[in-house]
Amino acid sequence: MRLVIVGGSDAGISAALRARELDGAAHITVLLADAFPNYSICGLPFYVSGETPDWRKLAHRTEFEGIELLTKHTAQAFDPARRTVAVTDASGQDKRIAYDALLIATGARPIIPRIPGLETPGVFPLHTMADSFRVHRYLAEQAPSSAVIVGSGYIGLEMADALTHRGLQVTLIGRSKTVLPTVDASFGHAVENTLRSHSVRVESDCEVHGIVQDHDRLRVYGNRELNVSAEMVLVVVGVEPNAAIGVKAGLPTGVKGALCVNRRMETDIAGVYAAGDCVETWHRLLGAYRYLPLGTTSHKQGRIAGENAVGGSREFQGSLGTQVVKVFDLAIARTGLRDDEARKAGFQSSTAESRHFDHKAYYPGARELLISVTGDRRTGRLLGAQMLGHWQAEVAKRIDVYATALFHGMDVDRVNDLDLSYTPPFSSPWDPVQLAAQAWNRAAA
Amino acid sequence: MRLVIVGGSDAGISAALRARELDGAAHITVLLADAFPNYSICGLPFYVSGETPDWRKLAHRTEFEGIELLTKHTAQAFDPARRTVAVTDASGQDKRIAYDALLIATGARPIIPRIPGLETPGVFPLHTMADSFRVHRYLAEQAPSSAVIVGSGYIGLEMADALTHRGLQVTLIGRSKTVLPTVDASFGHAVENTLRSHSVRVESDCEVHGIVQDHDRLRVYGNRELNVSAEMVLVVVGVEPNAAIGVKAGLPTGVKGALCVNRRMETDIAGVYAAGDCVETWHRLLGAYRYLPLGTTSHKQGRIAGENAVGGSREFQGSLGTQVVKVFDLAIARTGLRDDEARKAGFQSSTAESRHFDHKAYYPGARELLISVTGDRRTGRLLGAQMLGHWQAEVAKRIDVYATALFHGMDVDRVNDLDLSYTPPFSSPWDPVQLAAQAWNRAAA
Repeated sequence: MRLVIVGGSDAGISAALRARELDGAAHITVLLADAFPNYSICGLPFYVSGETPDWRKLAHRTEFEGIELLTKHTAQAFDPARRTVAVTDASGQDKRIAYDALLIATGARPIIPRIPGLETPGVFPLHTMADSFRVHRYLAEQAPSSAVIVGSGYIGLEMADALTHRGLQVTLIGRSKTVLPTVDASFGHAVENTLRSHSVRVESDCEVHGIVQDHDRLRVYGNRELNVSAEMVLVVVGVEPNAAIGVKAGLPTGVKGALCVNRRMETDIAGVYAAGDCVETWHRLLGAYRYLPLGTTSHKQGRIAGENAVGGSREFQGSLGTQVVKVFDLAIARTGLRDDEARKAGFQSSTAESRHFDHKAYYPGARELLISVTGDRRTGRLLGAQMLGHWQAEVAKRIDVYATALFHGMDVDRVNDLDLSYTPPFSSPWDPVQLAAQAWNRAAA
Repeated sequence: MRLVIVGGSDAGISAALRARELDGAAHITVLLADAFPNYSICGLPFYVSGETPDWRKLAHRTEFEGIELLTKHTAQAFDPARRTVAVTDASGQDKRIAYDALLIATGARPIIPRIPGLETPGVFPLHTMADSFRVHRYLAEQAPSSAVIVGSGYIGLEMADALTHRGLQVTLIGRSKTVLPTVDASFGHAVENTLRSHSVRVESDCEVHGIVQDHDRLRVYGNRELNVSAEMVLVVVGVEPNAAIGVKAGLPTGVKGALCVNRRMETDIAGVYAAGDCVETWHRLLGAYRYLPLGTTSHKQGRIAGENAVGGSREFQGSLGTQVVKVFDLAIARTGLRDDEARKAGFQSSTAESRHFDHKAYYPGARELLISVTGDRRTGRLLGAQMLGHWQAEVAKRIDVYATALFHGMDVDRVNDLDLSYTPPFSSPWDPVQLAAQAWNRAAA
């Protein structure tokens, strides 16, 4: 049995490891276009900031025992009838590799917006290891003192933090009304306040029209009289699926051009699996496919594809869109659906925001959490939650309690039945997760 | 409708608040033997340590609108036929108060072990506000430089931390093989190491035989040549139900003499409810009653009793024995069953310990977590988890992810399907909760 995996990032390596674990006899080959197997691209901001000085530490792992890793091997196409992959190796040689099962795990690539001037030196995307080397070199060699970041999603925010940490004066420009459009505006405003308190200039609700060289600086201009100059520009406006090899073979695509898969991570072609940022992702609450490129999801989908490729039978249980990001001293997290998303999906949603201390206020260091709970007024069912607070206030794992409750389709009120841990330095007898559920109940009553 | 509640701590006040919330017309009276309604007795160690300088801050709340609070009113007995409670008020006057529904929420009292010398001045129990005032006054007036703590459970450990924080030299004596017998010995050993690194002398597996005055010190002696002297002794060897008023009325008792209730928190007598540390608690995994006196449980049971007392219909969903404690810079938590508990309950349990960083090691400040997962080898079902790590490594809320999974009867392997949050400063693409589940799977395979 030969399993060939195209792509050696989260989904590809997870699949290889799981297949190896379950089938000692399988021959497992991973084809990597670059030379960085299983690198944590979520770590790039910290390499750029200097908090992770050695980029080699970004590898999730460096041992791949029993897995054939072919770096600098670019898969060009595959032939479903002959079950072969056409590959160009490091020396430019073309060859064919036979497979019994094939996994497409080619990930995503940064969206390059149509902004005039994007090719100007000093303007960078940031998605791959190669991108981050370029940015890092520019920072080291040119020592810019200012930067504009175009894009105010997760990566834009992390880069604003990272470049401020390096001492640059940062301007963050985003199209959405507030930064971090994946959470409600009240949360976005709180994040903007934190950014500004760290001297980041924030320009939300702004469309960039172009970037021009202006003496030794780059001038970024746009609507609403946007006119900012800086010594470098990062463009981080999201990613899109890198699905070309599948499309070439005739595989159907769905949301945003991502490859269609079933919940076993199988494509339409027998023996061909796909997983990670190149596929559509099943949303557990919506009961529908969305494009949700996340490392956690890629790891899960890869593991399932790897298991099924060697004869297993496992279904992806769906994403809840759970996410967290750290911006300076804030953690912002979400899981499930926001009110507007839930309403669009046909739920009779209502949402209640409330504030609670992360632990008993009489114990030193208590910090306020902002929590938003969304539920269905008709059924009482929990639909989603958002949370914001100090980065040491256990925001990330509190959102995970909601995520675990959502996974099981709990009612909001039933969250109060959970036997959660308590000691005054860490919580209250009712955890904030439960107090916010009680606030929703009162508001919905 | 008149609801009378005997006891104004966690269960009593939760019941009163819930009844008030649901029934605007009910007359709600809470009888308190002391003058400290809704005080957080879990906060006493921090008052003693000085971290919470003002004891008044220990109140969970100070506003009780629409609830009649009668402090220094001791309920002596109740008459189920006439539906009255006999009460002695602050001035020593006896009176009768009529009820339609009665809630017994009389809590627990400290176990006083049969150790000769317990009455010696300088020897203190610690459970009530009054106890903590006595200890606090002794610390302030006598300024002892050393203390012996008898009892190495949660409170003993917190007091070891608290008194060390105040500058005392502390010796901690416990009967169990390692401190904190509610977790496995490997966890207990780690806690002992932390205690010793903070200059606490730890004597485990030790039976105290007596306490004697020895000049201006107290000498504590016992088996295994135990002979320690100090200027004060705290005795914190656990609590027992304070069920007298129920017993007097003929209510049946179960484990450790706690009052028997059904899952609606009803006793055998119509209209009489009981909740909190004076009752037996339904264990969700064991499907049986245990004595599990915890503030979280008391709040839940009280809320349910309050709801049912005013005509609601809600069942207590059971305890998982979830607990967490902070000892110096460590957090130690558990939920569900340990291997020995699971085996005794008829499960074919197996347990795997593993270590994982709380977040990506390339981001500064990563700390190792020790995690133990217990599952049923036959069914694959998750039965329990224990976790230990730095107090800022989200141990408490990670155990809550397991607690939420346990609540829903998840299989260990299915924990990997949960969509948990990730960013390098807070976790890994597989959260440690999931990595430990994977380690259990490999060990059980």
